[in-house]
Amino acid sequence: MSQARRKVHVHEVVMRDGLQNEAVFVPTDDKLRMVDALSRTGLAKIEATSFTSASAIPALRDADELMRRIERRPDVVYAALVLNLRGAERALDARVDELNLVMSASETHNLANARMTRRQSRQALREVCRLAAGQAGVALSIGTAFGCPMEGAIAFDEVLGIADEFVASGATGITLCDTTGMAHPLQVREACAGLAERWPGIALTLHLHDTRGMGLANALAGLEAGITRFDASLGGLGGCPFAPGASGNVCTEDLVHMLEAVGCDTGVDLQALVDCAAGLPALVGHDIRGQVWRAGPSGRLHPKPADFDAIVERARAREPEA
Amino acid sequence: MSQARRKVHVHEVVMRDGLQNEAVFVPTDDKLRMVDALSRTGLAKIEATSFTSASAIPALRDADELMRRIERRPDVVYAALVLNLRGAERALDARVDELNLVMSASETHNLANARMTRRQSRQALREVCRLAAGQAGVALSIGTAFGCPMEGAIAFDEVLGIADEFVASGATGITLCDTTGMAHPLQVREACAGLAERWPGIALTLHLHDTRGMGLANALAGLEAGITRFDASLGGLGGCPFAPGASGNVCTEDLVHMLEAVGCDTGVDLQALVDCAAGLPALVGHDIRGQVWRAGPSGRLHPKPADFDAIVERARAREPEA
Repeated sequence: MSQARRKVHVHEVVMRDGLQNEAVFVPTDDKLRMVDALSRTGLAKIEATSFTSASAIPALRDADELMRRIERRPDVVYAALVLNLRGAERALDARVDELNLVMSASETHNLANARMTRRQSRQALREVCRLAAGQAGVALSIGTAFGCPMEGAIAFDEVLGIADEFVASGATGITLCDTTGMAHPLQVREACAGLAERWPGIALTLHLHDTRGMGLANALAGLEAGITRFDASLGGLGGCPFAPGASGNVCTEDLVHMLEAVGCDTGVDLQALVDCAAGLPALVGHDIRGQVWRAGPSGRLHPKPADFDAIVERARAREPEA
Repeated sequence: MSQARRKVHVHEVVMRDGLQNEAVFVPTDDKLRMVDALSRTGLAKIEATSFTSASAIPALRDADELMRRIERRPDVVYAALVLNLRGAERALDARVDELNLVMSASETHNLANARMTRRQSRQALREVCRLAAGQAGVALSIGTAFGCPMEGAIAFDEVLGIADEFVASGATGITLCDTTGMAHPLQVREACAGLAERWPGIALTLHLHDTRGMGLANALAGLEAGITRFDASLGGLGGCPFAPGASGNVCTEDLVHMLEAVGCDTGVDLQALVDCAAGLPALVGHDIRGQVWRAGPSGRLHPKPADFDAIVERARAREPEA
């Protein structure tokens, strides 16, 4: 942790990973206001939506309109999730900067989540790589990279094999996803060690969940193993339908707060991010997780108790020599 | 983090640090049932109550009776908080194994919390050390060791000076308290490095809060710096009246879960601890924090979706070669 103001990129996934788990449909205008506000916080990347079928993820059925109406900032990468060629075509049509392809290292989870075998996902997503080449970045998010809630442990070689294949197929980024928060810091550190050297020039990202409270500890372990890109979700929104009780993604504002505290440069205006988080409950209709938006940053000072002067006076009265 | 099954001691503070912040008075019989259940989980130490004035902390006004009625287990250290000589006499009378003396490194916080100047606290607590010598262990908990919510940064030399003084006065333990969760992992690691060597034979403990979500990351940083004793509170109960919005202590079950995951031997039966946590909301009348009691341990497997066979069949139908 000795890096002095090491540059770290924070990717906001609340608009996709967060909202896709919500029962409500957030109106497009409200989504736009949130994306545009997030764009002004200094976040490196915003996953804005998902180009999937309206019946599969009704909460994000306005992907095409939303993507076109975002007030683009040149310093922000606007990403969107796609699962197949049809989705990729729509996303490219809407001028998405980066396609986020998703498949799971676990066969069971991939079937449950993407409704395809891994072989089918690989094939479909390699086609997407070919289609997108030269038009947009392509990141592959590998789900259940640190364990599957249905299968259990996943051999990390399996994960590496999938990543290698997509790096060879033209992916510009690889994201290792702890989809349901099964990873622990030792595992993250061991898994991530040397990966930056394995895939030079590839944007390597950790996507962590906080299911067992280890989200930030895992992020720190990743940072120490050389990872400088992290997905996170405002207010810790998110979850996984296949692991009931699993809380959401690592909370963006808490992550930024910690990264800055340990000497990283995220480029993010924490207060602006906290202001965004404060607007989230009204959008989704329930309370959100996350600690920093509630407690304020570590440096926030609180007033002395109202009767402090009287306390001091009584204490001094007992100590005439003081 | 390379320690193989390194022995780590977990101290449960929910009965004192947790309950003292609660509006309700938990009936003594209910407290007893909880302490006795916690005693059977394998926890190394339980801070059972506080021998302070009934008007200052009404929630713990049954300290004398509670302490006498606990079903003592020889493998558990039963501790209690005391602020002065009167409290220490009551605690020794009730056969407390270890007195937990508390003062703050911050003058302002010490006045607000203990209603004494630090000089008065030092004097009173050194008298307690003399009184307790040979009768009970004496740990000094130094509050605001990593920052004060009213003063801000605290010079760590100030903390070291107080600790040195009490080690010289016969304290058997020193606990560094991040009273309102201001510490970050880099700070914890730097602060704790070398402390075990500075005070050989002294039980050195970290008492962390999770105010900004960094509780477990801080615990890991402490572990890596050689700390093997941690305070924690069931369900993350606790807080600090001088830092509104501050969430509670590091959650015991989440801490145990992480420590075991990274290869430590806490001696704690996680499921038994989770069972205790599940009984906490009924005691305090509200929901509790903590993730593991809700989500289960990382290794918990979930069933496949109900329509999984149909998903597989449809996927295979699209892939005749498979």
